[in-house]
Amino acid sequence: MMIERNKGFANLAAGYLFPEVAKRRREYQAKHPDAKIISLGIGNTTEPLTPHIAKAMADYAKSLGTAKGYSGYGDEQGNAELRAKIAEVLYPKMAKADEVFISDGAKCDIARIQTLFGRNVKISVQDPAYPVYVDGSVVVGAAGASSKKGYKGVTYLPCTAENKFFPELEKIPADSIIYFCSPNNPTGACATKAQLKKLVDYANKNGCIIIFDAAYYAFIRDDKLPRTIYEIPGARKCAIEINSFSKLAGFTGVRLGWSVVPSDVKFADGTPVKQDWNRVMTTLFNGASNIAQAGGLAALDKEGQKETKALVDYYLENARLMEAALTGENFKKAGVKVYYTGDSPYLWVNFPGWKSWDIFDKILDECNVVTTPGSGFGPAGESYLRFSSFGHRKDVQEACKRLSKLVL
Amino acid sequence: MMIERNKGFANLAAGYLFPEVAKRRREYQAKHPDAKIISLGIGNTTEPLTPHIAKAMADYAKSLGTAKGYSGYGDEQGNAELRAKIAEVLYPKMAKADEVFISDGAKCDIARIQTLFGRNVKISVQDPAYPVYVDGSVVVGAAGASSKKGYKGVTYLPCTAENKFFPELEKIPADSIIYFCSPNNPTGACATKAQLKKLVDYANKNGCIIIFDAAYYAFIRDDKLPRTIYEIPGARKCAIEINSFSKLAGFTGVRLGWSVVPSDVKFADGTPVKQDWNRVMTTLFNGASNIAQAGGLAALDKEGQKETKALVDYYLENARLMEAALTGENFKKAGVKVYYTGDSPYLWVNFPGWKSWDIFDKILDECNVVTTPGSGFGPAGESYLRFSSFGHRKDVQEACKRLSKLVL
Repeated sequence: MMIERNKGFANLAAGYLFPEVAKRRREYQAKHPDAKIISLGIGNTTEPLTPHIAKAMADYAKSLGTAKGYSGYGDEQGNAELRAKIAEVLYPKMAKADEVFISDGAKCDIARIQTLFGRNVKISVQDPAYPVYVDGSVVVGAAGASSKKGYKGVTYLPCTAENKFFPELEKIPADSIIYFCSPNNPTGACATKAQLKKLVDYANKNGCIIIFDAAYYAFIRDDKLPRTIYEIPGARKCAIEINSFSKLAGFTGVRLGWSVVPSDVKFADGTPVKQDWNRVMTTLFNGASNIAQAGGLAALDKEGQKETKALVDYYLENARLMEAALTGENFKKAGVKVYYTGDSPYLWVNFPGWKSWDIFDKILDECNVVTTPGSGFGPAGESYLRFSSFGHRKDVQEACKRLSKLVL
Repeated sequence: MMIERNKGFANLAAGYLFPEVAKRRREYQAKHPDAKIISLGIGNTTEPLTPHIAKAMADYAKSLGTAKGYSGYGDEQGNAELRAKIAEVLYPKMAKADEVFISDGAKCDIARIQTLFGRNVKISVQDPAYPVYVDGSVVVGAAGASSKKGYKGVTYLPCTAENKFFPELEKIPADSIIYFCSPNNPTGACATKAQLKKLVDYANKNGCIIIFDAAYYAFIRDDKLPRTIYEIPGARKCAIEINSFSKLAGFTGVRLGWSVVPSDVKFADGTPVKQDWNRVMTTLFNGASNIAQAGGLAALDKEGQKETKALVDYYLENARLMEAALTGENFKKAGVKVYYTGDSPYLWVNFPGWKSWDIFDKILDECNVVTTPGSGFGPAGESYLRFSSFGHRKDVQEACKRLSKLVL
């Protein structure tokens, strides 16, 4: 005998979506060494950090080399000044500094958050959805073996053109964890206040906890749309928010995120979830990099806010260019439908009669453009591709030119 | 009904050791606002980053603000150049680059590593030990409720003056995960090659996997002592090594560590542990900060190695000063015994007739010096204090002066 494997890993379906995309790209490039491949696939930021923020981190790193500027371990929950700044700038009258926890990114928080709950907890996810919600559940054993219908123990909530990408809430079982992402990855849908109110009311009525992934909030330009779930009355009782500087300030490689856990969210036995989350962060984590946190502070001051708005505007303009290309005559004729809200970095595009991976391969082959197959995000994503607006302008323009010549 | 709490959190014994130490210090300071408290408690680095390393990170952060220098998501397992450098510098002929995984620190890796194993896995730990080994096991449910004897499902291996702080291996059950730390936190003991060979042989014979915490390896000055477990034949079959730049280069706040998982370590079903660890790192983690990784690369080049050696020498000199003070007449008379090897940042000091927290309070009260109570690391740590050599020289000198006047 020897040591047993955590069964969750055997249960995890073969490839994580993005490595598979990267593999196909690599293989194509190997066969066609001259192809100039452009990626509109993975949601990876491409534009430099803005000057004020880069300088803040460079200065901080430099100061770590001085007796006065050096600091060792900080609070595991994050620098108090940054926690207060996030509460003040992003959650005025909605959350307090001690309800904000700084982390090394949203993906890591999503992975850690599953440790909070009993192993028999029910999981509900939007379909399609960011794969990590479910993968994290499989690893802790809250979700079981996978089949064509998805993982055992997970309730999938189809978000389709028919329901305007907002799920039928009645499908959610009582006492469920609900992962909800808005602006949505991959559909780009942005829930309205009325929709989020329905979600919050349903959660409060049915003993559910919402894990609200707001990592793309900075892309919202419509003032009527909620940028945090705490704009909704009652959300402080049932919702945890996960957020990130990755898409806000280009910190995908720098690594910085945060979570909000209001004191009012409680477990069945009355224990505040915040108490255990504090324990997770202090026992199983050791704080985000102090250099990254200095960058986070700079991103939220007046100058940083101005800069990050311009940075996000750049990607939004990319998205508009892509929308124009994907609604061209060649696409229209083939019945292709582009769902784009103007408040998200992602375009969600339906190709009737195509399997996602087939149209992915065709566009890779004929346009040398990498996209992300919608089916990788869940069964309801079949026949869709996700186009990401993260890219250099000239690459996006070139990709659009190639796409406009595609024969479907 | 509502959502159940993970029972592990209820099982976790009240205070994590270091927050309790911090609390007592805070309360003492509040009552005695004029007291000039010196901390020889928590193992937090105090000296500035060395010039070459600080500059490398500042330059990297600055370059992130340029089109040429910007980078977004890196490989989740870490920058390929850094993985190769660690393999080359620290594990020549012992481990390959693809067996090295970069992380945001040893504590986080220790927390994540528990997810690898089946929930019924047996856990063996040195007693005393760094609390996170057991706390992490409690959270995933591999360890159960706590009592005076410790947590259910955990085998404690007393490391005492009698056995020269190396445990009786025969107490370890078959098919157990063995957490082993050398140079040891808190005892400062540094296992010899002969001792580690016994450990590796025992693990291989009994189906065990060793999690070898080598976070203090840079403090080893005796050339005969092993600096990695892979110096021992057979270790590649049974040992995972966890390591960190925190104590090596003062990265406690910068956050950077690594793990080594050789391809030869396997689960009962033959699956290589490395395969699942790769999945953990890619699915539940998203890479260490690219700025920190630039610093890690600098720490391992020629100039960086020279600088970090001098940095560690500084703390070793602190330790020698403390050793001299704690072996003074006043301590000798009271039967106090100092265990210090010269190859560790920690002094392990026995106060016969005292409970750890009582002597902690006495030294806080009479010397205004913060230490760490040995009992917080496990039952066998009772009557001990851990003295940490991380401090500014003048603070250490002042603490030594005060300690030399202590009446026991």
